[in-house]
Amino acid sequence: MATHDFEPTTFHGTLGSYDPVLQIADGDTVRTSTLDAGGRDARGEQQVELANAQTGPFFVTGAEPGDILAVHLDRIWPNRDSAGSSTSVAANAVDPAYVPELPAFRADRVVAEWAIDREAGTATLLLPTRLGRLTLELAPMLGCFGVAPAQGEAISTATSGPHGGNMDYPGFGPQVTALFPVFVPGALFFLGDGHALQGDGEIVGTGLEISMDVQFTVSVRKGKGSSWPRGESEDYIFTVGNARPLDQALQHATTEMLRWLQEDYELDALSASTLLGQCVEYDVGNVFDPAYTMVCKLAKRFVTQLGTK
Amino acid sequence: MATHDFEPTTFHGTLGSYDPVLQIADGDTVRTSTLDAGGRDARGEQQVELANAQTGPFFVTGAEPGDILAVHLDRIWPNRDSAGSSTSVAANAVDPAYVPELPAFRADRVVAEWAIDREAGTATLLLPTRLGRLTLELAPMLGCFGVAPAQGEAISTATSGPHGGNMDYPGFGPQVTALFPVFVPGALFFLGDGHALQGDGEIVGTGLEISMDVQFTVSVRKGKGSSWPRGESEDYIFTVGNARPLDQALQHATTEMLRWLQEDYELDALSASTLLGQCVEYDVGNVFDPAYTMVCKLAKRFVTQLGTK
Amino acid sequence: MATHDFEPTTFHGTLGSYDPVLQIADGDTVRTSTLDAGGRDARGEQQVELANAQTGPFFVTGAEPGDILAVHLDRIWPNRDSAGSSTSVAANAVDPAYVPELPAFRADRVVAEWAIDREAGTATLLLPTRLGRLTLELAPMLGCFGVAPAQGEAISTATSGPHGGNMDYPGFGPQVTALFPVFVPGALFFLGDGHALQGDGEIVGTGLEISMDVQFTVSVRKGKGSSWPRGESEDYIFTVGNARPLDQALQHATTEMLRWLQEDYELDALSASTLLGQCVEYDVGNVFDPAYTMVCKLAKRFVTQLGTK
Amino acid sequence: MATHDFEPTTFHGTLGSYDPVLQIADGDTVRTSTLDAGGRDARGEQQVELANAQTGPFFVTGAEPGDILAVHLDRIWPNRDSAGSSTSVAANAVDPAYVPELPAFRADRVVAEWAIDREAGTATLLLPTRLGRLTLELAPMLGCFGVAPAQGEAISTATSGPHGGNMDYPGFGPQVTALFPVFVPGALFFLGDGHALQGDGEIVGTGLEISMDVQFTVSVRKGKGSSWPRGESEDYIFTVGNARPLDQALQHATTEMLRWLQEDYELDALSASTLLGQCVEYDVGNVFDPAYTMVCKLAKRFVTQLGTK
Repeated sequence: MATHDFEPTTFHGTLGSYDPVLQIADGDTVRTSTLDAGGRDARGEQQVELANAQTGPFFVTGAEPGDILAVHLDRIWPNRDSAGSSTSVAANAVDPAYVPELPAFRADRVVAEWAIDREAGTATLLLPTRLGRLTLELAPMLGCFGVAPAQGEAISTATSGPHGGNMDYPGFGPQVTALFPVFVPGALFFLGDGHALQGDGEIVGTGLEISMDVQFTVSVRKGKGSSWPRGESEDYIFTVGNARPLDQALQHATTEMLRWLQEDYELDALSASTLLGQCVEYDVGNVFDPAYTMVCKLAKRFVTQLGTK
Repeated sequence: MATHDFEPTTFHGTLGSYDPVLQIADGDTVRTSTLDAGGRDARGEQQVELANAQTGPFFVTGAEPGDILAVHLDRIWPNRDSAGSSTSVAANAVDPAYVPELPAFRADRVVAEWAIDREAGTATLLLPTRLGRLTLELAPMLGCFGVAPAQGEAISTATSGPHGGNMDYPGFGPQVTALFPVFVPGALFFLGDGHALQGDGEIVGTGLEISMDVQFTVSVRKGKGSSWPRGESEDYIFTVGNARPLDQALQHATTEMLRWLQEDYELDALSASTLLGQCVEYDVGNVFDPAYTMVCKLAKRFVTQLGTK
Repeated sequence: MATHDFEPTTFHGTLGSYDPVLQIADGDTVRTSTLDAGGRDARGEQQVELANAQTGPFFVTGAEPGDILAVHLDRIWPNRDSAGSSTSVAANAVDPAYVPELPAFRADRVVAEWAIDREAGTATLLLPTRLGRLTLELAPMLGCFGVAPAQGEAISTATSGPHGGNMDYPGFGPQVTALFPVFVPGALFFLGDGHALQGDGEIVGTGLEISMDVQFTVSVRKGKGSSWPRGESEDYIFTVGNARPLDQALQHATTEMLRWLQEDYELDALSASTLLGQCVEYDVGNVFDPAYTMVCKLAKRFVTQLGTK
Repeated sequence: MATHDFEPTTFHGTLGSYDPVLQIADGDTVRTSTLDAGGRDARGEQQVELANAQTGPFFVTGAEPGDILAVHLDRIWPNRDSAGSSTSVAANAVDPAYVPELPAFRADRVVAEWAIDREAGTATLLLPTRLGRLTLELAPMLGCFGVAPAQGEAISTATSGPHGGNMDYPGFGPQVTALFPVFVPGALFFLGDGHALQGDGEIVGTGLEISMDVQFTVSVRKGKGSSWPRGESEDYIFTVGNARPLDQALQHATTEMLRWLQEDYELDALSASTLLGQCVEYDVGNVFDPAYTMVCKLAKRFVTQLGTK
């Protein structure tokens, strides 16, 4: 159960089977940092010209294909005082005929700077708009993180899939455990693309993009296969589907939840289906990236009363 | 500001320009009831063989095309002690290859009865499953309600559109104000399809289907056109898009919210877009009906600080 | 087997259960005319302010719910010398970010007139563009036609469904037999929205819109239920799915073809599936209207060798 | 203008920036072979355990990012006498509720063998079905081929994108020129997954899968950037969009065609749009793979009369 302090010096623009930067054991904790989505570090200096540059990969001893890698996000916190965001809703999030009215197509300024007060835990909009000095509460999260995909694929940090990647789901914040299917020996865990906060859907194509200090703790759940990323928060278990259209992302997430309830909780098909029907919740992750993200959630209070395998 | 007690005796299976059952004035309140989705009343007796049979239409004096009809849902409460639900997640909510594993395709029993305790405000599953006597808190809502569509259309209560209809959104509950575009003189308001509670997405194709006592109060917002239904709750304003795929429903809802912020709040395109980007929330209404429903929400605290027109 | 000459004087903007304009028998032929999509007749005079105004409905004696109404399109030919079209690809047919570059959003002229030479069978573009006097061969078709939908619905001529409607499929031309499910007694057949020619997808939102002389012959196929429109041409049988996204339209059309092959040709599931896998063809009807249209085709040479029921 | 005979011994399961197997010059011709989709060669022997194993990559001297690589498919012909196909329409190509009726879910046999008569140019179904000894004409094509994607990505041969890949479009047959955007120096061209013939949409998930002898000739079009694959046949120019849903694939293909007409033919936006509106055709490539493929076609006769740049 070691704790590693790891200062990243190389970064990746795809999640693939690259040489690990560090080998860690089941139960270990890592304290590291991530660049912002544009490749800038804690001092605002450009480190790389990669979108959503990833720190890692971390090789987790004992993780084998067919296992689940659990990554508890112990801490995610901005390590500088300035974040940036887009200011135009993306063309694909509005009616096609409305696109020409969006700021990005009207030559308005499309980048905003936000002042981050790490003591107070707030972000304040610096761009002059009718919103004044809009101040929002920080809700840090990782936009893009995950494991190496199967069979030699190397997948761009612009998109997501069964391996995780650029899901841009605000629910992946501190104290949440992310669960990834393991496709290659050691899992090869990557992380990056921190957002100081983000609305549902990442509809402007960014959250408040910022470099982060991140601490995480890994564990391997042997033989617990899954098809899609999952997660556990204090109050919920959830599953993540990444695809277009949203309908398909929702189908992936719902199917994954039905399977989970039947595999790990003592529910049969009828019970799982009846329960979800009246108690399921959905969150929209992103509707901006090449693959959209839909999250299927079930409050833990509905399943903790059940026996678990 | 009269209060009308109206006992329905005729019902409709489409929302269209039918003869009104009652003429009411701007500001009036109506106390009435709705059949359950299968056409049964408070005593469980079959009144009609129509799906989502509608009470109404109510003609609202002064409502003209181009206005908005605001319907405040004062009260929605079950008027009997038994509700029914499906127990199989619908084929279109899971991965296509998973369909044969759903209860509905495995000849399992697909209807469940629930005991409704109106005093305690709970629903208890009576079907024997591994869930035991699962007891859930009531969260009453209207699944299908709205106004007559434009140009002589008569639209099935199975589906939804700009006129409202079968949106199956749990957010349309007590103390919420639903806002509909007015397409015909008098608006012609219909209501039905109460659910004692429902999960997001109505993924089993039903909530807890039950007959309801409903009280609502109408008001006309003159010249406040909209393209899609909207709503106001204690903490949120929201817009509703009805279409397939979910992506398109989300586009409608997002566009409607951008328009609303620019028309009724003192925001320009840049401000509205910047605000939504970091503060928007989405709810999934239904992913079962012919048109899916996506809801775009903004917490009122972000806009009440702004001036409004 | 009478032949009726019918001069329309009333028109409909929805397909619904309206009073029939003429009662005809199984086997009868009707010679009539249709307005153009904008409501103008053979002299270019505005008859009605309805989009895709429909001639009809025609009540076909003996057609009952559960039957198929076969409408052989004997003849469709323009009855005037001028047609109109849009000139801008629609916003929903291009990448969202490309929308602002479309002519409709750049204030270019968006309506073109075409000279129709009915002797030569050609249409010539009169709008000055870099295409010069582009001359195309006429390929007349009906954009919007079908039967009254079920259960009192009245569906706008802007869209389509199981009842037909605004499918905008170029394959519905002369010598083709269109097959519609019958939902109401007499079927109630409507027709309109002739195009002198049209590209796949109707991506500018119009074909060459023109009034038409139409002759058609009806027959009733008793007890031959179907879920979606079908058709027969000299070389193909085909099925039509109307929905969004195109994926769903394709699912409807493919399922309908699989059913047809098993019901009316002596194929079991394995044979039908194996055959379609290597021999199916798809046509895109429209990708402009609220419901898109996908057509699943099978060359008759593959099935005429088989026994038929 | 050399001609190379290349016998492949290594194969790839992803398209990525791998070491080239051969360096060829602009104008060169290559005669080589491809394994079938299951990794078997001309003798039916298993060479690799990869799906759609690719021959290559070929490094084309002078090809740089921003160019187009033109690959003329001189010849594609089966090099053995037996092909295989699936026999069940895929779950995602039918209505969700119809899935349980598909052969694959009813435990019917799902693989068929076909006898290939290379002299006669025919394929004959050997599986006993009600189709008898169904005999179809060969129409050879490459299902999966393309170039290395940008920025270090390595993309599975199961799917497709701007780089080509598993498009499964029957139009990529002999005498057609495929045009790919170049993302990396040398383009790195891959090919594989030959089908002796295939229906539109590849709805059973396979064509007639077989190993092939292939001859192709490359040329580099300097500075002719494109965003998506394009093609030229004797009678058509065409563009290819790869995405889900089909709507988005169609948007990509249509946008690419509008750009091509404006960049390489002397058309402005209005002319290109007006022409496509009435003359465009669409082909469905595949609706089985993770990304679907839609092809936008324009008959050359409409553009050869125009001046070209």
